[in-house]
Order: sequence, then structure tokens, then C-alpha cells
Amino acid sequence: MKMKTMLWTAAFLLAASHVFSQSKDVIIEDFQPSSVNQPGHEYPMVNSQGRVRAQLFAPDAKYVQLDIGGVKYDMINDGEGLWTGVSAPQDVGFHYYQLSVDGALVPDPGSLFFFGACRYGSGIEIPSDDMDIFALKDVPHGHVQEVYFPSESTGTDRRAFVYTPPCYQKDQGKRYPVLYLQHGYCENETSWPIQGRVNFIMDNLISEGKALPFIVVMTYGMTNEIEFGGLRNFDITPFQTVLVEELIPYIDSNFRTLANQENRAMAGLSMGGFETKLVTLNRPDVFSSYALFSGGTYNADEIKEHSGLKLVFMGCGSKEFPDGVNNAAAALKEAGYNAVSYVSEGTAHEFHTWRRCLYEVSQLLFK
Amino acid sequence: MKMKTMLWTAAFLLAASHVFSQSKDVIIEDFQPSSVNQPGHEYPMVNSQGRVRAQLFAPDAKYVQLDIGGVKYDMINDGEGLWTGVSAPQDVGFHYYQLSVDGALVPDPGSLFFFGACRYGSGIEIPSDDMDIFALKDVPHGHVQEVYFPSESTGTDRRAFVYTPPCYQKDQGKRYPVLYLQHGYCENETSWPIQGRVNFIMDNLISEGKALPFIVVMTYGMTNEIEFGGLRNFDITPFQTVLVEELIPYIDSNFRTLANQENRAMAGLSMGGFETKLVTLNRPDVFSSYALFSGGTYNADEIKEHSGLKLVFMGCGSKEFPDGVNNAAAALKEAGYNAVSYVSEGTAHEFHTWRRCLYEVSQLLFK
Repeated sequence: MKMKTMLWTAAFLLAASHVFSQSKDVIIEDFQPSSVNQPGHEYPMVNSQGRVRAQLFAPDAKYVQLDIGGVKYDMINDGEGLWTGVSAPQDVGFHYYQLSVDGALVPDPGSLFFFGACRYGSGIEIPSDDMDIFALKDVPHGHVQEVYFPSESTGTDRRAFVYTPPCYQKDQGKRYPVLYLQHGYCENETSWPIQGRVNFIMDNLISEGKALPFIVVMTYGMTNEIEFGGLRNFDITPFQTVLVEELIPYIDSNFRTLANQENRAMAGLSMGGFETKLVTLNRPDVFSSYALFSGGTYNADEIKEHSGLKLVFMGCGSKEFPDGVNNAAAALKEAGYNAVSYVSEGTAHEFHTWRRCLYEVSQLLFK
Repeated sequence: MKMKTMLWTAAFLLAASHVFSQSKDVIIEDFQPSSVNQPGHEYPMVNSQGRVRAQLFAPDAKYVQLDIGGVKYDMINDGEGLWTGVSAPQDVGFHYYQLSVDGALVPDPGSLFFFGACRYGSGIEIPSDDMDIFALKDVPHGHVQEVYFPSESTGTDRRAFVYTPPCYQKDQGKRYPVLYLQHGYCENETSWPIQGRVNFIMDNLISEGKALPFIVVMTYGMTNEIEFGGLRNFDITPFQTVLVEELIPYIDSNFRTLANQENRAMAGLSMGGFETKLVTLNRPDVFSSYALFSGGTYNADEIKEHSGLKLVFMGCGSKEFPDGVNNAAAALKEAGYNAVSYVSEGTAHEFHTWRRCLYEVSQLLFK
């Protein structure tokens, strides 16, 4: 008994000292303003460890907290009402966050706002060593067009964003393939063009000759009306009708597209991947390339009657289920399909995983 | 003396009772969610008097206030941490606002966010009886294109938004006139396309045959770097270079424009009107129509050598300086110019004044 107690005590002390040493980890003082701050704002800042330092003037608050990655970090009052706090290191890439002021959960007025986590709220960019892929560079730029297309099935005119490649405005005779690209649960049609940085990823790939120029269409996947956890009972029909019967015909009659299966792809992240899978299984005649980003896998049985299928892409973060996408791609290849898996190193279920997935799949599409 | 004292006392009592009766005015309980709330949010709400009712859950706050129109209104805790407060009646149209939680000035998480007042923050729409002019209707819609154009003078690729009319995508042979439209101080290139609702105003006017189809271009006027009150010393040169030497050539080579003075107009609100005046006086060869919204006036002497000038439009809110624009237009007409003034009834220096100005001038342009 005594031995056992001693062992438990030693284990506890080891565990405690581990927690203690982590919480006491040196904070490297190389903080820089986040790249997605409001104009003129120094805070929030990020350091080379991926820590976030937030600051808020709240002269009469009892407590202020930085709420990021599911953890609330206490901020400290300098005695004059200026509260500052630092988070633990975050994964590289893009994260949603908020502040708590005496329990009120509010956006940080220092950051730009993004639709994610079911709301427009604060976001922060943790620098990665491949930020270059989505940087605004001095290359020819495509346009992101906000369009409203008629939708009889929903009784309203619906919004979509359409990326047209840099050459689109110049050569008025040329027609282009189209990728339909879906956001995830608790996101909307602004998520890909804004935090997803679709236009910059495409501009850069096209200018380097790594991707063929194609059009990217992003609309709202009608994903957010369901109850959390209700994914199993999700009905794809209303969105499939909007996408296939209303949006695709609008795009094909208002943009210079190559309007056929061979030149049409569908991709989606997370729940948008789930939607991509449902739509492509229901309508194998519409798209010739399928891509799921942190959004599940296909097996050979599911797609065995899909004629004209050119590519199946399945990606996710290394902190998600890399074996899942790798094994699924290996099995599809074994069965004779052109299947590709991709694992984003060091990232989880976050937008940087999906930007990298887009970067990868765009180099394979329509070739 | 006694008589005088009595009169003063009576006057004071009258004034006091007036204030008293105003502050005790009945609040009409017909509040509806604001039309620019976040998805699924009931608050903030607006009633038929133009009062704003805000609500925030702030369980440990000492005080919460609604800060709108330069006034802070105390909100009341229901005892469970849910704070609610109501403002005085606001003018119809669009207003920026924020909340104070124990002195921390933060966006209201219930509203959508807009760039104005030098920041992205909360906005609210007070219904007017002419909201129809900017409503999303079942009519053909133009596209709003986000473009990045090269700018050698500033060493960066700069953003603009370009409205193309509904017919633009359909008739690939037709060319269109262009209106260059500037935001005001503490706003940016998103202000006109978002809270200004340019695309809906134009879609509706064009579908009713009230305006000719034309392109509208909105970019950042580089207005916000100056010190407040430094308007007199504002140097137009950097922006004029971007606009005339860089943006106009980009638009003319990437869109199907009628690329000449006759088919080019410039307009701006507030400080954007001031910029419009400076640019058009410096470069009378570039534009043929000038429009100032709450942004000053022209006199005949200033434009006497402007050949090709077709229209001078000057508008403002009835709560601003209506005599100023009316007298200036009368004097210009007297001097033989095609000058028009417009007064927006019941509004001040706010976006609804400027939406109405755009609605009016768009019916006159390029005819």
C-alpha cells in the first residue's frame, strides 16, 4: 500500500510539475500585430510560438478574458483599466476567438470580423511558413464577383461569390471550367473568399503556372439551420436543388463556362465535404472531380457506376484523421481510380488545413 | 423685475416640462429585429418611433450602455445578467453604434459589422418609408466585383469594388459609362457597396427604366490617414494619382467601358465630395458630371473653363445645409449650367442621405 501511494504521489508530482512547467513556459517577446487586425490596431498580436496576446481597455471591469481554442485565458489589469492577456501556443493558421468582459462574450474591436463559429466575430492569423501561398502579391489578379441568383425553390434571390481568373476579363472569347466550393458548418458563403483567401491562392497558382485558370463558385450550403449533432438526419435535397437546378444554370448563362461534366468539379470542407459527397453520389452526371477537405472519404463501392469520374481528392490535417484519407485513397487507387490523399502538417480542423487542401487540389483539377 | 422673473420662471418651467415630457415619452411596443442583424439574432430591435432596443448577456457587469448618436443610454439588468436598453428616436436610415460593458467599448455581437466611424463595428437600420429603393427585389441583378489593381505610385496592389449592371454579363459587345463614387472620412471602399447598397439601388433603378445601365467604381479615398480637423491641409495629389493615372486605366482595360470624358462621372459623400471637387477642378478633362453628397458646392467661377461639363449635382440632408445646395444650384443655373440640388427630407449627415442622393443623381447621369 505504501509503495502504491508513493508511486501515485510521484506520478501526481510529475504530472503537476509538467503542467507547472508548461504554464511557466517562457513567453518569447517577439509579438507582432496579427495580419487580420483592424486598420491602425496593434492588438491582437501573435508571437513566434503561436501565442496570442490580446488587449482591451475596460476601466470598470472586474475581469476580462481571451477566449480562444476552447480555453479562456485571464487578462491582467495594469491598474489603469488596460487589460492584457496571452494564450497558450495555437496551431498555425486561422482561428476564431472572442473576449469576455465580466462574462459578456463580445468580439475583440481590434480584429477584423469573419463568419465562423455561427457568427461574424473576431479572427486571428497564426503565421505559418507557407503563408506565401495565400499572400497578396504583385501578380495579375482575378476578380471576386458577388452575385445574386434567382432561386424559385427557396423563393428568394440567393448570394454567391464567383472567382474569375485574371485572364477572364482580357480574352472575351475563352471559356473556363468551374469548381463549386462549399464552406463548413457554422460558416457561410463569405468564409471561403475571406478567411479562405481563395482569390489569392488561385492568383498565385495561376501566375506560377501551377494551376490552370478556372472559375470558383461559392454559395451558402444551407448548413446552419440544423441542430448541432443532427448531421445524420441532414436532408441534402433543398441545397442540391439550389446548387444543381438553379446556381449551375445561372453560372453557365452568366459566365463563360465550359458547361459540361468534364469541366465541373465539386469540393467542400467539413460539412461542405459531407454535402459534396451526398450531391456527387446523388448526381454522378454533374461533376467529374470530387474533393473532400476534412470531410470524410469515398469507397470504391460508392462510386463504381460513376462514368466520367476523373479525380477523387481527400485531405485533412495531421491532427485529424490522416490514416483515414490515406487508407481511403490507397484503396481507391487499388481499385483503379485516380485518387489522391493529402495531409496538412501540424494543423487540425481549421481553415489553414483547407487553404492547403485547395492549393493542392487546384494543381490537379481539369488537367 | 418681478414680472421679468416670473416670465423667466415660466419659460424655464415650460422648457423643463418639455424635456420631461420627451424623456417620459411613451415607448411604442412594436419593436422588430433590425434588418442588419446577424443571422438568428432578435436584438438589436427598432420600433416605429426609430428607437433602438439593444440587449446583451453580461452576468458580472456593473453597468452596460447603448452608445448611439453620440449619447450613451443605460441598459437595465433583469437580475439574471441580461441587460436591455432603449435609445431616444433616431433619424431614419443607417447608423453606427457600439455597446459599453463596464467602460469597454465593444461591437454589439447581435449586429452585422460595417466600416464607418474609422472602424468595423455595429450598424443599425432605422426603417424609412423609402427603403424600397435599396431593397433586394426579384429583378435582374448586377454583380459587385472585388478587384485588385496595380498601383505603382503607392507600391501596392489596391482594392476596388466595381458594380456591373445586370445586362453586362449578357451582351458581351456593349460598352458602358462609368461613375467613380467615393466614401467619406472614417469610411472605406466597402462602405458604399455594403451600407450604401449601391448594387440594389442600381438594380432597382435599371429594372424600372429610371436609370441607364452604367458601371460604378468604388475605391479607398486615402482619407483616413489625416488628423481629424486637418481637412484644410489635405493633399489630394496621392489619391488623384491613384484614381486618374492607375485606377481609371485599369478599369478601362479590364471592363467594357466607354472610355472618354463624356461617359465618366465622379461623385462623393462628405470628404469624398471634397475629393470629388478637388479632382474635378484639377482635371476638368477627365469627368463630365460632378456630384457632391453632403460635400460642399461649386460656384460658376470655379468651373467656368470646364468644357464638356454636362451636370453638377449637389445634395444633402434637410438637417444639414439645404440652403447651401439649393442656392448654389440656383446660382449655377442662372449662369447657364445644368445644375441640380436635392434635399433628403428628415435626414442628417448619414448614409440614408447619400443613398437617396445616389438614387437621384443616377437618374440624371449619362442621359
